[in-house]
Amino acid sequence: MGSTTAPWKQLLLNALQSNSHLRHSSYFQLATIGPNGMPANRTVVFRGFQDNANKIQINTDCRSHKIEDLKHWPFAEICWYFTDSWEQFRINGAVDVIDGSNPDSMKLQQREKAWFASSPKSRLQYLGPNPGLPSLGDQPDQGPSSLDPSAGPAAAFCLLVLDPDQVDYLNLKSNERISFSKKIANEETSWNSEKGDSLVSLTMTRSSSWA
Amino acid sequence: MGSTTAPWKQLLLNALQSNSHLRHSSYFQLATIGPNGMPANRTVVFRGFQDNANKIQINTDCRSHKIEDLKHWPFAEICWYFTDSWEQFRINGAVDVIDGSNPDSMKLQQREKAWFASSPKSRLQYLGPNPGLPSLGDQPDQGPSSLDPSAGPAAAFCLLVLDPDQVDYLNLKSNERISFSKKIANEETSWNSEKGDSLVSLTMTRSSSWA
Repeated sequence: MGSTTAPWKQLLLNALQSNSHLRHSSYFQLATIGPNGMPANRTVVFRGFQDNANKIQINTDCRSHKIEDLKHWPFAEICWYFTDSWEQFRINGAVDVIDGSNPDSMKLQQREKAWFASSPKSRLQYLGPNPGLPSLGDQPDQGPSSLDPSAGPAAAFCLLVLDPDQVDYLNLKSNERISFSKKIANEETSWNSEKGDSLVSLTMTRSSSWA
Repeated sequence: MGSTTAPWKQLLLNALQSNSHLRHSSYFQLATIGPNGMPANRTVVFRGFQDNANKIQINTDCRSHKIEDLKHWPFAEICWYFTDSWEQFRINGAVDVIDGSNPDSMKLQQREKAWFASSPKSRLQYLGPNPGLPSLGDQPDQGPSSLDPSAGPAAAFCLLVLDPDQVDYLNLKSNERISFSKKIANEETSWNSEKGDSLVSLTMTRSSSWA
């Protein structure tokens, strides 16, 4: 199913391209729901699409609160605003939490792939007694100062994989709105898309975002 | 209670100041929970502190989905990332939804004040049959083309007021983390603050944000 390329994906790749000069263009906000029933929202880093398909990857620490949230209720909504092109993507779906104890060997391979795809400096974050700080720049290194580059995923390393069900796209320069919804029938995945102007409820949701 | 100035507020004012050259520095992501129990997340615009106290104001359209969300479950978490100073504020609390039918005359006055504080162009958004598009720049005007500047709030105009309970602050340049929690005793509001390093759970939450 993941091999069907979603129609919203090219829009997102274009936005990433046109904002790539901005370090923060790969950051988005991930909303989850805590075990206490409260909304939670934090910035995370886009780590690419899984196997170049449609699923969105995020690296995180098994000891983080968002893991607790997602194990309790495995749904999230991404809000990704591109500050240069004035585009917003709202992407919701179920999130698969893949830690070292995952019984699925394919998923363990994906976790290992994500580990080796991340920089040695960001890998170091997972080796301390507590997670280190994000590596966004010239901060002092956290945790251990050296890493065996051939060493596999640290126990604390966790891969999150969000499988998009709906994507709401807004372009504030072209005034374009598009709502994409996944449909699954007979094991086949397809995507419906509707222009905002034909979708009052979307229009409401969208416009009110900045109203 | 709102008159006690919170210790996190100066940090937020400083961040707004040091990022004020960026149009998007007044945008943040607001997470709510839909009636279907799903997390929702969208970009909104900071409209200032209520009466120069600690409560955060957001203007929105009564017809937007977030109103449905908040009437069903009146709690939200803001994630506000400042892209130039590398500071993140996570601010959660209850949200008061103030529309034209509010029985409290003080709140109706606050709604009117917020209406007149917003630009004529953004007021126009509320006058169409559906909400218009956000006014972030040189987009074509939406809805009616003229507005009586002395006319009071449109029926669709809604003021949201978030009353912060907890604020988690992260500075990625100084590696500083501070967690602020509101305490209310005998009608008195006070704020506790703890440095991240003494707060493992905060450390975990924070660091994992970008891990």
